[in-house]
Amino acid sequence: MSKPTEPFVHRRRILWGETDAARIAYTARFLDFAMEAVEAWFRNRLGIGWFELNVDLGMGTPFVHASLDFRSPVTPRDELGSTVTLTRLGGSSLRFAVVGHAGARLVYEATLVCAFVATATMRPIPVPEQFRVALENEATSQAGE
Amino acid sequence: MSKPTEPFVHRRRILWGETDAARIAYTARFLDFAMEAVEAWFRNRLGIGWFELNVDLGMGTPFVHASLDFRSPVTPRDELGSTVTLTRLGGSSLRFAVVGHAGARLVYEATLVCAFVATATMRPIPVPEQFRVALENEATSQAGE
Amino acid sequence: MSKPTEPFVHRRRILWGETDAARIAYTARFLDFAMEAVEAWFRNRLGIGWFELNVDLGMGTPFVHASLDFRSPVTPRDELGSTVTLTRLGGSSLRFAVVGHAGARLVYEATLVCAFVATATMRPIPVPEQFRVALENEATSQAGE
Amino acid sequence: MSKPTEPFVHRRRILWGETDAARIAYTARFLDFAMEAVEAWFRNRLGIGWFELNVDLGMGTPFVHASLDFRSPVTPRDELGSTVTLTRLGGSSLRFAVVGHAGARLVYEATLVCAFVATATMRPIPVPEQFRVALENEATSQAGE
Repeated sequence: MSKPTEPFVHRRRILWGETDAARIAYTARFLDFAMEAVEAWFRNRLGIGWFELNVDLGMGTPFVHASLDFRSPVTPRDELGSTVTLTRLGGSSLRFAVVGHAGARLVYEATLVCAFVATATMRPIPVPEQFRVALENEATSQAGE
Repeated sequence: MSKPTEPFVHRRRILWGETDAARIAYTARFLDFAMEAVEAWFRNRLGIGWFELNVDLGMGTPFVHASLDFRSPVTPRDELGSTVTLTRLGGSSLRFAVVGHAGARLVYEATLVCAFVATATMRPIPVPEQFRVALENEATSQAGE
Repeated sequence: MSKPTEPFVHRRRILWGETDAARIAYTARFLDFAMEAVEAWFRNRLGIGWFELNVDLGMGTPFVHASLDFRSPVTPRDELGSTVTLTRLGGSSLRFAVVGHAGARLVYEATLVCAFVATATMRPIPVPEQFRVALENEATSQAGE
Repeated sequence: MSKPTEPFVHRRRILWGETDAARIAYTARFLDFAMEAVEAWFRNRLGIGWFELNVDLGMGTPFVHASLDFRSPVTPRDELGSTVTLTRLGGSSLRFAVVGHAGARLVYEATLVCAFVATATMRPIPVPEQFRVALENEATSQAGE
């Protein structure tokens, strides 16, 4: 299935407080960068944030896996653009590729996997009906998972 | 009323990830340091953490004021000791002085004020009975507030 | 001296990762909010960020004081707008008022004070010539300090 | 080579400020947990922290890879113990397994890879002589890498 939309890119400046004494953004901040980009993707592509999903709808999307390859350092001189792609839509789960660039320079590549749960039980639930069409339109592949 | 107990001191090493590109702990981390010390004080002196207070007892202690004077920088060479004193016990509110040292060197002085609320309404409630005696023993002064 | 420019407002959404188990943004994050707004003010009004100031020019602006009054909680439902005003320009020091709103609702009021230093010595230096005119145009009051 | 020492375990309480509105520690904090444990391992096993390594010796250990499997949520009710093992010692690089438990419960499993660099050039350097014996004693396997 060809991807019907422009890729989602979340852009923001690296902050002073995200640097460390090596004068580059601290390693652990890169998971914040990738998560923040996926959070913005939910808001943009599903029309709902994680807060509303949890508090209003009683659903969550806890993450079960994250991996990060650090390709080049960033500093507050850089605006970081993180491109988020839904690479796999499972029965309950979502797999994202997040790729960060500063201008043309590759900064990081991440894979993040989460699954829909009911917050009352913290057990996986099928992808909710109200999000299925939008998710299918976004996914570059689908599987029963 | 004389203070019956040893002052509470929360000690921990400054972390690499808390530094910034000036090679000292980032300004905003000092409020984390002071809050973390007060959090440990609750656990130590009242026998309950903020999480249990919120989730199990339906109470919170939101902060209404914080001020910080930064006296000297710290780095991961330093172990920070933050001394917490309950300086004023009001009807609903608690005022803390938090003073940070690295060895003999003064690092920061903070004042933090919070108030007991019912989480259901987010409205102030009187200091809960089960904590009153412990709080009165800690407080260096008391007021109707 | 009348203020010649529009007030500087730094806007951004509250993030999921900034909330705590009370389902509001965590107390200590408010100092991050205020600092981030002042950081953006430097970039916007002086044309230079803290990173470039430190690494390229050998200058820093360490903070000596911060105070915060928390007026209402925020969540990821909110876009926070933080208005930064330079309220006092001293010989070396800058005093800022930072006021946060979510829509019309007052969220926090902060005062932050920093001073220019040479990073080699960490000693105060006069406000650098290249920033003086811009700072004088911004300041709502001035003093020899 | 059999491992001559007790595994290194870094223990600390989960903090209130590390939770999110789902009332569990926020996903991105787990990379902080794992990194903090490796930072403590350096101090304990090599006798030097990342700050001293950078500022005093002109060396760094930037991370090139991190992966995390999230096995169960944690809250401030939990003390997290993170066990750090050097699983591979390369010519320049170090691979760590970090496994987090709360009591007997498995919380997360992480793999982290870093490489020694000269901070002046940010280029990989051989594992420094002064750390080689200690690293060889720790490593559960070695390779030319």
